[in-house]
Amino acid sequence: MGELTRFGISLDKELLQGFDRWSKAKGYDNRSEAIRDLIRSALVREQWRQGEEVVGVIVMVYDHHQRQLTSRLTELQHDYFHRVVASQHVHLDHDNCLEVAVVRGKASEIEELADRLKTFRGVKHCSLSAATTGKGIV
Amino acid sequence: MGELTRFGISLDKELLQGFDRWSKAKGYDNRSEAIRDLIRSALVREQWRQGEEVVGVIVMVYDHHQRQLTSRLTELQHDYFHRVVASQHVHLDHDNCLEVAVVRGKASEIEELADRLKTFRGVKHCSLSAATTGKGIV
Amino acid sequence: MGELTRFGISLDKELLQGFDRWSKAKGYDNRSEAIRDLIRSALVREQWRQGEEVVGVIVMVYDHHQRQLTSRLTELQHDYFHRVVASQHVHLDHDNCLEVAVVRGKASEIEELADRLKTFRGVKHCSLSAATTGKGIV
Amino acid sequence: MGELTRFGISLDKELLQGFDRWSKAKGYDNRSEAIRDLIRSALVREQWRQGEEVVGVIVMVYDHHQRQLTSRLTELQHDYFHRVVASQHVHLDHDNCLEVAVVRGKASEIEELADRLKTFRGVKHCSLSAATTGKGIV
Repeated sequence: MGELTRFGISLDKELLQGFDRWSKAKGYDNRSEAIRDLIRSALVREQWRQGEEVVGVIVMVYDHHQRQLTSRLTELQHDYFHRVVASQHVHLDHDNCLEVAVVRGKASEIEELADRLKTFRGVKHCSLSAATTGKGIV
Repeated sequence: MGELTRFGISLDKELLQGFDRWSKAKGYDNRSEAIRDLIRSALVREQWRQGEEVVGVIVMVYDHHQRQLTSRLTELQHDYFHRVVASQHVHLDHDNCLEVAVVRGKASEIEELADRLKTFRGVKHCSLSAATTGKGIV
Repeated sequence: MGELTRFGISLDKELLQGFDRWSKAKGYDNRSEAIRDLIRSALVREQWRQGEEVVGVIVMVYDHHQRQLTSRLTELQHDYFHRVVASQHVHLDHDNCLEVAVVRGKASEIEELADRLKTFRGVKHCSLSAATTGKGIV
Repeated sequence: MGELTRFGISLDKELLQGFDRWSKAKGYDNRSEAIRDLIRSALVREQWRQGEEVVGVIVMVYDHHQRQLTSRLTELQHDYFHRVVASQHVHLDHDNCLEVAVVRGKASEIEELADRLKTFRGVKHCSLSAATTGKGIV
């Protein structure tokens, strides 16, 4: 956390009341913190729209009994190895695995990787969660 | 627009710079207006999550040659007539119509209506856009 | 509706049962109709990702007492007049108006127009609903 | 993968062509696999809407220099410990951490946990990715 800047904004009284109710219900300590969060979310959405370097999290659920799936998934992740930062494997039950891969790169490359993983036979679910490198988002 | 309230918020300098770049790129005149918009969006999302009285817009694209579709759509809208405020019809080309229905009611009722319209044979596209009555959103 | 093609697909029994429950709950008459809808939704999402010619619906809620807003909105829509196919105005209450504009053009142009409308002072809500020209979506 | 069932569906020829182009571009081997994926996505969305037992992945980016944040995050995760299945920590750079928590429970509980984590000072980004236990999704 760097240097803080303070500035004033004006809101219609009724909108401010609605905002105060909302931020209290969500559990924010104060208005600044709630507004910071709204701003950060807007900036992260913009990073993805602009195709900047982003961090994403790919979540897959798959049946590990599916012949050769595990090795094909590993291979593909290695093709994109400079993008896959880390991955984690969770055993959901006897059949189902969940795998979380933290990926970093251009938005379009990450979307392409998630698209390809989704098409593998035995992959029941594959989604991409848009996150951020944290740079410029303080 | 009612009475304005002014208050101060504090932001990390780097976050503020990112925010200023973003709001300038979007075309906002000043910080207050940009922050008001972020707050309003958060409040509208919350109205839908809480199931309050909301306004929604149902957009359908369909082939009006499909036998009896038009009359079935009209009938269904009349079953929900106290929810459908207005509707508009646009001829996209020889075959395709777009219909926009402005609906008002509880979030769950509106979602149900959109779900039912979607299943009609000949309806190629049906989506629900979450808006607001504007009350409390100033 | 043109010529129908029939083909076979194979599903795991358990997935088929889940699908049948889902499509019945949604109100689909038969499996083909439900699958057609899933396919159409995927194609419409892809049209927007690819930046093809699309149809969109811009929904705005605003306070018409806001000085000069109505004329600024009309002006902007005229700047983009070859994109705005039709628009509809609904009086929500004494203060609030809802306006629905059906727009047609490249995905990026439509997104830009929605972005600009959102920044106008007095506009409380502005969202863009992605629809389709219906072409290629049967 | 259990017993396969085969059945026929009928599509308009033009829609089928669009679908074949789409599934080829995405990398699907055959129509069945592409349709299975569309069905699975619809079922997972429905599991979340119905509030069933689901699996979710919470992604947070935060500044670990923020005083006491790490311990507060750990505490909160322990309050919900029967929901947090596993978590993974990635060092993005000198300041920024990314944490991925795999959570399991009712949709509403998981959303509440994600909401609370988001409000912590120093948490720059917090999103919830909807996944599935894999049960009934084959």
